[in-house]
Amino acid sequence: MIHILLLLSLFTFTTHAAVQDFCVADVKFPESPAGYACKPATVVTVDDFVSTGLRASGNLSNIIKAAVTPAFAAQLPGVNGLGISIARLDLAPGGVVPMHTHPGGSELLLVTQGFIKAGFISSANTVYVKTLQKGDLMVFPQGLLHFQVNAGGVTAVAFASFSSATPGLQILDFALFANDLPSSLVEATTFLDDATVKKLKAVLGGTG
Amino acid sequence: MIHILLLLSLFTFTTHAAVQDFCVADVKFPESPAGYACKPATVVTVDDFVSTGLRASGNLSNIIKAAVTPAFAAQLPGVNGLGISIARLDLAPGGVVPMHTHPGGSELLLVTQGFIKAGFISSANTVYVKTLQKGDLMVFPQGLLHFQVNAGGVTAVAFASFSSATPGLQILDFALFANDLPSSLVEATTFLDDATVKKLKAVLGGTG
Amino acid sequence: MIHILLLLSLFTFTTHAAVQDFCVADVKFPESPAGYACKPATVVTVDDFVSTGLRASGNLSNIIKAAVTPAFAAQLPGVNGLGISIARLDLAPGGVVPMHTHPGGSELLLVTQGFIKAGFISSANTVYVKTLQKGDLMVFPQGLLHFQVNAGGVTAVAFASFSSATPGLQILDFALFANDLPSSLVEATTFLDDATVKKLKAVLGGTG
Amino acid sequence: MIHILLLLSLFTFTTHAAVQDFCVADVKFPESPAGYACKPATVVTVDDFVSTGLRASGNLSNIIKAAVTPAFAAQLPGVNGLGISIARLDLAPGGVVPMHTHPGGSELLLVTQGFIKAGFISSANTVYVKTLQKGDLMVFPQGLLHFQVNAGGVTAVAFASFSSATPGLQILDFALFANDLPSSLVEATTFLDDATVKKLKAVLGGTG
Amino acid sequence: MIHILLLLSLFTFTTHAAVQDFCVADVKFPESPAGYACKPATVVTVDDFVSTGLRASGNLSNIIKAAVTPAFAAQLPGVNGLGISIARLDLAPGGVVPMHTHPGGSELLLVTQGFIKAGFISSANTVYVKTLQKGDLMVFPQGLLHFQVNAGGVTAVAFASFSSATPGLQILDFALFANDLPSSLVEATTFLDDATVKKLKAVLGGTG
Amino acid sequence: MIHILLLLSLFTFTTHAAVQDFCVADVKFPESPAGYACKPATVVTVDDFVSTGLRASGNLSNIIKAAVTPAFAAQLPGVNGLGISIARLDLAPGGVVPMHTHPGGSELLLVTQGFIKAGFISSANTVYVKTLQKGDLMVFPQGLLHFQVNAGGVTAVAFASFSSATPGLQILDFALFANDLPSSLVEATTFLDDATVKKLKAVLGGTG
Repeated sequence: MIHILLLLSLFTFTTHAAVQDFCVADVKFPESPAGYACKPATVVTVDDFVSTGLRASGNLSNIIKAAVTPAFAAQLPGVNGLGISIARLDLAPGGVVPMHTHPGGSELLLVTQGFIKAGFISSANTVYVKTLQKGDLMVFPQGLLHFQVNAGGVTAVAFASFSSATPGLQILDFALFANDLPSSLVEATTFLDDATVKKLKAVLGGTG
Repeated sequence: MIHILLLLSLFTFTTHAAVQDFCVADVKFPESPAGYACKPATVVTVDDFVSTGLRASGNLSNIIKAAVTPAFAAQLPGVNGLGISIARLDLAPGGVVPMHTHPGGSELLLVTQGFIKAGFISSANTVYVKTLQKGDLMVFPQGLLHFQVNAGGVTAVAFASFSSATPGLQILDFALFANDLPSSLVEATTFLDDATVKKLKAVLGGTG
Repeated sequence: MIHILLLLSLFTFTTHAAVQDFCVADVKFPESPAGYACKPATVVTVDDFVSTGLRASGNLSNIIKAAVTPAFAAQLPGVNGLGISIARLDLAPGGVVPMHTHPGGSELLLVTQGFIKAGFISSANTVYVKTLQKGDLMVFPQGLLHFQVNAGGVTAVAFASFSSATPGLQILDFALFANDLPSSLVEATTFLDDATVKKLKAVLGGTG
Repeated sequence: MIHILLLLSLFTFTTHAAVQDFCVADVKFPESPAGYACKPATVVTVDDFVSTGLRASGNLSNIIKAAVTPAFAAQLPGVNGLGISIARLDLAPGGVVPMHTHPGGSELLLVTQGFIKAGFISSANTVYVKTLQKGDLMVFPQGLLHFQVNAGGVTAVAFASFSSATPGLQILDFALFANDLPSSLVEATTFLDDATVKKLKAVLGGTG
Repeated sequence: MIHILLLLSLFTFTTHAAVQDFCVADVKFPESPAGYACKPATVVTVDDFVSTGLRASGNLSNIIKAAVTPAFAAQLPGVNGLGISIARLDLAPGGVVPMHTHPGGSELLLVTQGFIKAGFISSANTVYVKTLQKGDLMVFPQGLLHFQVNAGGVTAVAFASFSSATPGLQILDFALFANDLPSSLVEATTFLDDATVKKLKAVLGGTG
Repeated sequence: MIHILLLLSLFTFTTHAAVQDFCVADVKFPESPAGYACKPATVVTVDDFVSTGLRASGNLSNIIKAAVTPAFAAQLPGVNGLGISIARLDLAPGGVVPMHTHPGGSELLLVTQGFIKAGFISSANTVYVKTLQKGDLMVFPQGLLHFQVNAGGVTAVAFASFSSATPGLQILDFALFANDLPSSLVEATTFLDDATVKKLKAVLGGTG
């Protein structure tokens, strides 16, 4: 018969070490370059590691007929510091996820419904495009411009996994036209003409 | 009018830099601690970044009624070096993914069909278990024992993303009973009795 | 003759930079994914970098006749953030360190007294076992199951270095049997029979 | 008197360890995810660590009146694996470095002549713009869109350091208009009209 | 016409994710092994990413006729966590930056005025020395002893970029002679004689 | 009864993934920035993970009465890529390990016999010194100058673990005096006088 107390006395340090298994995000404290502060292990529960927020589609009643629902560290605190996160993507017929980048991580797209034409462009300006169906995967290397468009007559659903708990998202049109970056600077640095820039700023709420 | 040739002469270095966007696995050369060698950019195509191998379930006609189909760097060469990969999990009614770890990465599970009861155990021996339905997520921190079992009357499907292109997989029963590790050592280090060890070695093909 | 004050005025920034040499653990503040918060450099002393806690054996009067004494970041705050730590292992004759993993780091074992049979199992289920004597080394890659047993008639002593200041420790039997993970789940995910699971739960203090 | 040979016999392992100080790029072998293969230490010379290629401006006789001359691992092999590189930037009056990203690293810009207006846009679409003069610095976080324009009547010179030996460079207009990405996809994913896309494709040599 | 509000509702998560683009140093909170705590994104301004502190030379009226002016994370908070920083180096005729190391990063030196003889010594004790002129680069791998001396009759200026926001600086003579390390220990560990050690301790303000 | 073949068919991918558990050094191929190339898993044996080379002291019949015997990746190929290694240190009475740094890793010293006075100096020029006895530990942060001297009348033995498989070793006197670095440069950058430099160059075999 093994004596429990003796055994436990042997390994009492495991309690101290345990919190290092994970670092559940605690947004009440300042972040560090490595991510959010850690919630004390004593108050961590299974729900810190579980999300039900991606069960349903986001709102598709918008002009691009698309919805992106993230489960990054801010939404799913258990992924903090673990180098992984995910987002749900819904695309109605005609829907588009506009040209964008993730500055902080690579993406692996999994189509679970419908058809999606997806692509990315390398630093050498080479285009990699493919039409994906249910069960297909496509990887988008970190920081490169990429896009997804619905390629069928039905709503498409996909899940994008990321190699970071906080991959970020920079949507090209929002970056160029939805802020106060002066039109003259946009024009000088994109070769777009003034009318185009002004029109898109108007549409997207930009000024300047 | 912009003069193309002059523009291009300005940025001719982009071709050299481009291959650094990604490192598509080339299994003909020796690996390094950071992953597989890179295929030359000139022979990379979109298919290096795409996988259709997870469209269908693996074979479920086995005793644990489960199938795991990976898209790691060996199957999807475009993820090499990018810190991301995925695997498909199919669980028939009564199916089980036995207790296991991924030594090289954290896992983020997404259920796409049916119901799955999943759990992991921390270094402090705390158990985190949850029953998940379609659209639910659960994260399993790197290196910790975890499992998944079908929790409904229908076949369940899930996709497990990993924070590594080569997360590894160590299935507990295979590690203990499916090789030539002497029974006496298994017994001494697991507190299992000789009959149990011998029986499982017989079932799983182990010797010694 | 060199003028000290002038020299010092030149390099006054070194004081600010100095704290970046190390990050001595301050457990009063929340942790981050990269480790404990740093104690201010002004209150750091040499004793933050020194440990005398491994001079003596831990208590060997337990059923497995073994003691593990760690010097991780929680015990030796100077290693915080430096990717290194150590633990002392004492094994009386017949002593065993049961099957376990370190989720957060690789281990390098050094035997300093007696004889130890040590081994690990790879993801491919290959077994690597060796009997070590005084002065011998064996490395256990991160996250893989491994064990150590006394292989002589005298008490053995060893020191295990780790590639992390917080490597963690998951002991297989504690993870399976020393908590409230329901027996039915243990059985379904390990192929062990109910009697075995119930017996070990009783011994190790588990419930369910 | 110290006996040299005895001393040397003590530390004979230093020769083996030395090559690990650096990893000078050897482009004749396949790359790995961590960078180029290493040239044998025996053939490394000081010139592997030195570059004279940034003494002079690149050709400014182009429509954007700008030249970028890199010293990345491909041009300065000594930086391979060291997480640092640099590029020279020359901007004639009216010159522009168009909107671009570096997928693989952050940038720290140092102006050494003239005046440059520089800016970047965050994932939150906030704009950070500043006019810099000789001796000024500005940092552009990894993967975010940024630009530089000459802000004076004289040629400006700057040096951009990067946190990677291979930071990459994705110029927005080249990515969108200088390849065979179909106009319909560009339009759908950027909200630009067909005339604008066709015009810029014509200018930049794109097709489709 | 695109409907702004609908579009924005689609991507409302971008605000939460944005702070992950960067981590501007907030020195009021404890540091972590990964760097300083992050200032809340709401109070970050462009000036956190800009430095004007390197416009002018530091004070050269000292015995070594040299000045080093850093822009590390403590001076330029925007580089915190980004793996990049810089320092300005001014060397009057006859000026010297004494033998030193950067424990935390590699250095890439750019000469912008005059002539500098620079060198480093590898672990194999091989010397790599070169005289650099305006526009020349030289890389010094992490942790290796290196130096810079003015090699012309005019004041030289250079900028040293680092692969870390906090590379550190250990100046050999200060480490050996400007503190209370007992002379007997200095002598035993450097082979220098007592008179030399005592003299340099006197000059540099050391005791013991 | 579990059917072995069916089970195995389920997890056939484990063979491909297994090699990613470790990367045993294969010195016949070029290194990468992340370490040596990997030996194929099929030819790896337990002896790749075991070293018997540290059983005995190195030769102490030298003027500094010390011996260092490394087990880095070049000597113990199994540690390649795992971020851990070790070296044995023997110090006869009066023995000294001269002032040195490890550019590539932090060190954790364990004394196993006798008494050792050890110390390091921070970037702020603060000295941390302690006399250690059997069982004591001291950590030396990466890249900082440190030393060990015998502090008793008997031979001392210690084992130094490192946070890198290739930590490197730069011995101050060898770097300054055992090569062809011109005496004038040594003098200018260390403030040592010509007689001292010439004498030590003569002793250590340096020229110039």
